[in-house]
Amino acid sequence: METTKFTLSEEEMPTSWYNVQADLPQPLPPLLHPGTHEPTILPPPLFASELIKQEFSTERFIEIPEELQQILRMWRPTPLYRAHRLEKALDTPARIFYKYEGVSPAGSHKLNTSVVQAYYARQDGIKRLATETGAGQWGSALAIGCSFIGLECKVYMVRVSYNQKPYRRILMETFGATCVPSPSTDTQAGRDILSENPDSPGSLGIAISEAVEDAMHRDDTYYSLGSVLNHVLMHQTVVGLEVKTQMEKAGVYPDIIAGCIGGGSNFAGVILPFIPDKLKGKRIQIIAVEPEACPTLTKGPDMYDFGDVARLTPLIKMFTLGHTFVPPPVHAGGLRYHGLAPIICHLNRLGLIEARAEHQVAVFQSAVQFARTEGIVPAPEPAHAVKVVIDEALKCKESGEAKTILLALSGHGYFDLASYEAYLTGKLIDYEYPREKVEEALSKVPKV
Amino acid sequence: METTKFTLSEEEMPTSWYNVQADLPQPLPPLLHPGTHEPTILPPPLFASELIKQEFSTERFIEIPEELQQILRMWRPTPLYRAHRLEKALDTPARIFYKYEGVSPAGSHKLNTSVVQAYYARQDGIKRLATETGAGQWGSALAIGCSFIGLECKVYMVRVSYNQKPYRRILMETFGATCVPSPSTDTQAGRDILSENPDSPGSLGIAISEAVEDAMHRDDTYYSLGSVLNHVLMHQTVVGLEVKTQMEKAGVYPDIIAGCIGGGSNFAGVILPFIPDKLKGKRIQIIAVEPEACPTLTKGPDMYDFGDVARLTPLIKMFTLGHTFVPPPVHAGGLRYHGLAPIICHLNRLGLIEARAEHQVAVFQSAVQFARTEGIVPAPEPAHAVKVVIDEALKCKESGEAKTILLALSGHGYFDLASYEAYLTGKLIDYEYPREKVEEALSKVPKV
Repeated sequence: METTKFTLSEEEMPTSWYNVQADLPQPLPPLLHPGTHEPTILPPPLFASELIKQEFSTERFIEIPEELQQILRMWRPTPLYRAHRLEKALDTPARIFYKYEGVSPAGSHKLNTSVVQAYYARQDGIKRLATETGAGQWGSALAIGCSFIGLECKVYMVRVSYNQKPYRRILMETFGATCVPSPSTDTQAGRDILSENPDSPGSLGIAISEAVEDAMHRDDTYYSLGSVLNHVLMHQTVVGLEVKTQMEKAGVYPDIIAGCIGGGSNFAGVILPFIPDKLKGKRIQIIAVEPEACPTLTKGPDMYDFGDVARLTPLIKMFTLGHTFVPPPVHAGGLRYHGLAPIICHLNRLGLIEARAEHQVAVFQSAVQFARTEGIVPAPEPAHAVKVVIDEALKCKESGEAKTILLALSGHGYFDLASYEAYLTGKLIDYEYPREKVEEALSKVPKV
Repeated sequence: METTKFTLSEEEMPTSWYNVQADLPQPLPPLLHPGTHEPTILPPPLFASELIKQEFSTERFIEIPEELQQILRMWRPTPLYRAHRLEKALDTPARIFYKYEGVSPAGSHKLNTSVVQAYYARQDGIKRLATETGAGQWGSALAIGCSFIGLECKVYMVRVSYNQKPYRRILMETFGATCVPSPSTDTQAGRDILSENPDSPGSLGIAISEAVEDAMHRDDTYYSLGSVLNHVLMHQTVVGLEVKTQMEKAGVYPDIIAGCIGGGSNFAGVILPFIPDKLKGKRIQIIAVEPEACPTLTKGPDMYDFGDVARLTPLIKMFTLGHTFVPPPVHAGGLRYHGLAPIICHLNRLGLIEARAEHQVAVFQSAVQFARTEGIVPAPEPAHAVKVVIDEALKCKESGEAKTILLALSGHGYFDLASYEAYLTGKLIDYEYPREKVEEALSKVPKV
C-alpha cells in the first residue's frame, strides 16, 4: 500500500516554537525609530508584553503554554501528503509532498498565530483585539482565535473587499467578531478620509491606521498583526517542526522546499526549522515564490523602509518596493505587500534562500492541475508555490532525478473561487513588473 | 493530556462496505414498476451493472476495489473529535463526539459514493455521468469524483441555486465538469418547460428529468444519484465502520447517535454499522433529525410513492409527504426531500431508530454555539443534528448522567454562509408544518 497521508498523533505536536534568531550567523539589523533613526522596539501599548519579549528573544525554543497547546490540537498536527496522483499526471520521478494548513478552522495557517496573540493579550488583562484585513483571511483567523480565547475582536476590512467578499465578513461575524468596512466612521483616521472622499474604496494602509488608532485610544485593546513580525513567524514554526518529524518517519528529506511569500509567515513556518540543517551543510534548495506583479525579493533593494503606508511602524531593514507602492490587483491579495518579514529578508541576504517570481495565469493553470489530481483547491497565494513545484518536478522528468520536493500549502481557495472563475473563463490577465511605479515609491523612502 | 482527535492510520480504513441488508430481520419491501405495480429493479441503461447488483445484494460485506481504496485514502479515515470545548460551554457531564466528513475535497460525505459510482461506470465502458443538483453539494461531489476517475460530468443545477450560489458552480467547473442551469435548452424536458415559462426558476424534479433524459439518450452516459438508493447508503458505511474502530480505541460506546436525514445517506453511513449491535440487544438510541418544515419521518405515512416529481422512478415503500410536495424554503436544502431512503424507512418501521423534527432558527443557534466552541461551521443540514446533541447533553446536565453522544457531522458550511448571515441578522424565519399542502400531495400518490 502506498502511503498518501503522513499523520502524527496529538502527542507528537511540537510543544515549543523554534526561534531561528538563536541560530542566525549574524543577528537581525535593529528596528529604527522613525524620527530619531535610533534602534527601537515595538510600541508597548499596542502589543502584549510576552510578544514583545518573543520578538527580540534569542532563546532557541520557547515553550507553548499548555492551554494554547490544547487549542492548537483542535486542528494540529496537520497532515503531510504525498502527491501520488500529481506525480503520476506529471510522469515525474520526483517525490512531491505537501504540508496542508487548510484543515484549520480558519482554512489557513493564520490561526496558528492569531490564537496565540489573543492568549497573551488576555494574560495582560486585555479584553479586545483590533486588526485590519484585506481579503479577509487574517481577519477571519483573528475572529476565530479571539472566540476561542474569549476576547472581543474588531476587524477593519478594506471596503472594496468588504463589498466583494461578503462570505469572509459573515465568517467573522459567525465567530462573534465585529467587522466594519474601512474607511469607517469609527476612527478619526477613517472620518478624515471619508470627509475628503465619501466613496473611498479603502486600502490596507488606511485599515492599519484605523486598527492602530482604535488600539491606541482604548485601554482594553491591543493591536494584532498577522505576518511580518518575528514573533508571528515563530508561532508558525509548529508547521515546519511537524514536517520534519513527518518526513523523518516517512524516511525522506527534502531536496527542495517551495512556499509563497507575502508578509512571509507561511514560508517561514515551514522553512525555519530546516535552517539549522542548512547551516550545518545540508544541501537543500529553499525557494520563496512571489508574484511578478509584486516582486519584493527578486527586484526590490535591501534598505530601511516603513512597514505601512501611514509610516506608523518603526523603520525595518528589508527588501522593499517602497511603502507607498500599490501593487497591481493580482488575485493573490495576501502577496500584495511592498516589503517582507525581516527574518526572511535576512535569510535572503545571507544566501540561505532564493527567490522566484511567477505570473498569475500560469499559477492558476498549475493550481487547477493540482486540484484535479489532489482534490484540494489551493488558495491563490500558495498556488504560486504549486507552480514552482510543478516546474521543478518537470525538470526532474527531464534529468531523471528523483528529487524530494516539499510544498508549503498554506490554505484552501474555497473563499477565492471567483479568481478560479476568472481563470477558467479566460478573463485573468498578467501584470508586468511596474518598474516606474516602484522607482517612484522607492524615491519616497527616507534615507537612513 | 486530554485527547481531542481520534485519528486512524490509512491501514485502518475499512476495505469493505457493510451491507445492512444481510442483517435485516425482515427484508426490504420490493420496488414496484410504476405501470404494472409488479416488483422491479433499477432501470439498467441508467446505472452501472455492479451498482444494480449491490442494490439488491444480501452479502454482509462487499469489498472495496483497490483503486477506489487508494482514492478514498486521499481524505479517509476522517477524524473523530471529542467536543471538549462544547461540553465545557454546556457544563454537561455528557461526552460528546463528532465524526467529521467535512475534510473531504467536496467538503461533505457525498464524495464517498460519487467516486464509487464513477468507478463502476468506467468499468462498464461509460465515458460520462449526468446528474441533477439542488444547492450544489452533490453536483460538486460528482464533479470531483469524475475528475479523479477520468470521466466527463454534466450537472443540471436548479436555476435559482445556479444564480444564487455561483461558488458551487465554479467549484464544479474547476474540477472540469459542465454545469448548466435547469431548465436548460440541452434536453427536450428543459426546452418544453422553457417554451411554456422562459423564466422558470427550476426545481429538483425538473433537473432530475433532464439528467435522466440526458443519460437515456446517450450510449456513453449513466445517470448518478447522491442518496436514497441502497448502494449509495452502503458506500457511506465506511464512515460508521471507522467510527466503531475509533470509539473502541477511545474505550467508549455511544448511548446516543444523532444525524440529519434528507435522502438518508449521511445518517445511514454512521448508524448502519451499529445496527447489528442493536439487534443483539445493545442499548443505543439512534435519532434521525429532520426539519419541522419537511417532517417525513415524524409526520409522513408509510406507503408506496414515487421518488421524484416526474414519476420516473419505480414506486418505493417509504415514509413520504407525497412526491408533488414542495417543502418550504428552509436553508438546509439537502433536507427538503418528500421521501426517504427505503433502508432508513425500514429501520424506523422496525422500531430500530427514532425521529425528531426541529425548527431552523433554533438549529442555527446551536450551530453558532458549535462553531464558536469547536471551530467548525456546520453545514445547515447536520446543524439539525447539532441541535439534538446539545439538547441531549443539557438533559444529561439535569439528570447528572454521563452519556456518550455521537454526532454525525456530514460537512462544513463554508458555502452556506448566507444562511448564517440570515440567522445573525435576525432574518431567518421558522416554517410551520404545511399540513394542508402535504394532505394535497398525499392525495396524488397512486394507490397500490
